[in-house]
Amino acid sequence: MDYSQFFSAALNRLHEERRYRVFADLERIAGRFPHALWHSPKGPRNVVIWCSNDYLGMGQHPRVVGAMVETATRVGTGAGGTRNIAGTHHPLVQLEAELADLHGKQASLLFTSGYVSNQTGIATIAKLIPNCLILSDALNHNSMIEGVRQAGCERQIFRHNDVEHLEQLLIAAGPDRPKLIACESLYSMDGDVAPLAKICDLAEKYGAMTYVDEVHAVGMYGPRGGGIAERDGVMHRIDVLEGTLAKAFGCLGGYIAGNADIIDAVRSYAPGFIFTTALPPAICSAATAAIRHLKTSSWERERHQDRAARVKAILNAAGLPVMSNDTHIVPLFVGDPEKCKQACDILLEEHGVYIQPINYPTVAKGTERLRITPSPYHDDGLIDGLADALLQVWERLGLPLKQKSLAAE
Amino acid sequence: MDYSQFFSAALNRLHEERRYRVFADLERIAGRFPHALWHSPKGPRNVVIWCSNDYLGMGQHPRVVGAMVETATRVGTGAGGTRNIAGTHHPLVQLEAELADLHGKQASLLFTSGYVSNQTGIATIAKLIPNCLILSDALNHNSMIEGVRQAGCERQIFRHNDVEHLEQLLIAAGPDRPKLIACESLYSMDGDVAPLAKICDLAEKYGAMTYVDEVHAVGMYGPRGGGIAERDGVMHRIDVLEGTLAKAFGCLGGYIAGNADIIDAVRSYAPGFIFTTALPPAICSAATAAIRHLKTSSWERERHQDRAARVKAILNAAGLPVMSNDTHIVPLFVGDPEKCKQACDILLEEHGVYIQPINYPTVAKGTERLRITPSPYHDDGLIDGLADALLQVWERLGLPLKQKSLAAE
Repeated sequence: MDYSQFFSAALNRLHEERRYRVFADLERIAGRFPHALWHSPKGPRNVVIWCSNDYLGMGQHPRVVGAMVETATRVGTGAGGTRNIAGTHHPLVQLEAELADLHGKQASLLFTSGYVSNQTGIATIAKLIPNCLILSDALNHNSMIEGVRQAGCERQIFRHNDVEHLEQLLIAAGPDRPKLIACESLYSMDGDVAPLAKICDLAEKYGAMTYVDEVHAVGMYGPRGGGIAERDGVMHRIDVLEGTLAKAFGCLGGYIAGNADIIDAVRSYAPGFIFTTALPPAICSAATAAIRHLKTSSWERERHQDRAARVKAILNAAGLPVMSNDTHIVPLFVGDPEKCKQACDILLEEHGVYIQPINYPTVAKGTERLRITPSPYHDDGLIDGLADALLQVWERLGLPLKQKSLAAE
Repeated sequence: MDYSQFFSAALNRLHEERRYRVFADLERIAGRFPHALWHSPKGPRNVVIWCSNDYLGMGQHPRVVGAMVETATRVGTGAGGTRNIAGTHHPLVQLEAELADLHGKQASLLFTSGYVSNQTGIATIAKLIPNCLILSDALNHNSMIEGVRQAGCERQIFRHNDVEHLEQLLIAAGPDRPKLIACESLYSMDGDVAPLAKICDLAEKYGAMTYVDEVHAVGMYGPRGGGIAERDGVMHRIDVLEGTLAKAFGCLGGYIAGNADIIDAVRSYAPGFIFTTALPPAICSAATAAIRHLKTSSWERERHQDRAARVKAILNAAGLPVMSNDTHIVPLFVGDPEKCKQACDILLEEHGVYIQPINYPTVAKGTERLRITPSPYHDDGLIDGLADALLQVWERLGLPLKQKSLAAE
């Protein structure tokens, strides 16, 4: 049997739908972020990264790099096994204590990625609750959807950020049915924020558990970087907070934080945790350094918001179709997968501006976009250059601008 | 509703079944492995690690540590995003080329862990093959089982390493049915090896695809560390090889290798790949250094086998119940979860010997064991000390020895 036909056919479907993805081979330079080297087909070229999820540039922070180097030199590169089999090491234990403190919870548990923490975390929690009903936001990330699916219990989807719809479902489920509400705090493709206080009100009123994914918010919101829940004063009302070390903290890995019994039960029952090698000590030390720094330093958070606001203002003034929100994400509407990809190719090849096209399945078809993520290190000159490059691309591809008169007002 | 009751009840079940796990907080010392610091409840103590999956001690190799330090210093700590969104970096691209070369395949694809590579790799491959039937070895690792489950297609389990049973299932499926055989090359809890050549014969005869997990073999078997498939001369006959960077290569991460279309299709369709942050550059550079070193250096492999053989000989001579096999794994039969745990506690607390109890669900109930993994750095003195400690523990707990006369022969 010719099995290769199945795989080439699958690839052809992507080419036909214009959503075959090509990855750019980049090389960051510590201390020079967002500048980087692009290993292009024609040789290495300097580019400016405008789409990193290392939102605060902590991946190049001297304390974070220093912690990684120091720990690697002292204890080596790998953990050596699963947590049970020789893999629990001191920097990991310290990191879990740091994360529990960050979220004001009794305990936390690390996973190899935020994806895994959602997938095996949600599935395990829901399986341990008899007859659990999961109420899941319509725009939850793929990792949460997979976790809900793996849980194998009944699920209902509430309309995105729609607390009235959520309340209807909670009422319909009845007071005796165990219920788990699963949502994100900050949705990364639109940059909008969940009404966490209202969701907590409902959870308390109708006796539901809450699980909130804060991966695009930890480090960046709240006085100590605890996320949107900390900023909104509701962290103590949420049962399980999930976060990542791979975005604002500049490293790798995911985690959940909650009361000791929940965390211990996930530790003891989650296959995606039990059967996988622990994160390397050097990664854990680097993450701890980033978290500690951001608990007391507000410079990165304030500068980050300032940069995002400036990018939005400049692009809006130029008439570019910024999709509005109140956070650090700057989505630019395109609405066509082919043009979205073309725009990114021209930006990279002709302007040295690196932004990835965001197409289906990451966003719904017809809402394709560029997703710009300014960092504290994108200065005014870079922002002006970005606006110029985008305007040239918009004109060349015949993409619509907003009414100039309105934009100028 | 009191949700905490569900989690405390789940934990009580584990305590009652005597399989509640306690993790030891360890701190390795680069250059002194297998010696390490145990952060015990009574303060730090020196111990010898006898159960690490850093089988060759590459996690402390100067070239590997040096590569991690150099890359972290030069490019920073994190990848900054998913592969599509700013996360594809040069050390990762180089590592994938290195892995493809190691296995003599056209391409390879990295994941955050071996667990994820199996889970999302198998699921994605099987989903792309219409009406696929998965034939899965009965002792496959949990990550493969989860991958098979997520694939959602029909699966049949063949008896462990039983090629006659496998052949029956292949015949029964018929020539027109697409079939995927999934097995490991080296089963890590018993240390036994799959008859890969025979499995390839059957796959070719009956037109099946093959997927082989080599996580406990890569780096350690074959002239270049390509695994059991390389050693047995069948690497080119296997469609997809799966491996890890977290064991013999001393780092973190998993991968698959195969022909370009298969790898590109998994890259394009696997949710556990698409939606997760890429491995950090420093981890990739360290892994590349380890793979390159082990492609040409046989010292580690030879010394590793020599040490494993010596441990087996000494423990057998002492009458300890070594479960026999032809590989580097030294399982010691206990057959009782409580005594298995007690033995490990005494070994750690009184002898400074760190071995984890292997209980259900990692192995079947009634086959609880100690699993000893000697490395090239366990010298004769340490091996003699291990035998002494084990004998004392065996006597104290009233565990049976083999007939001394037989053992001495």
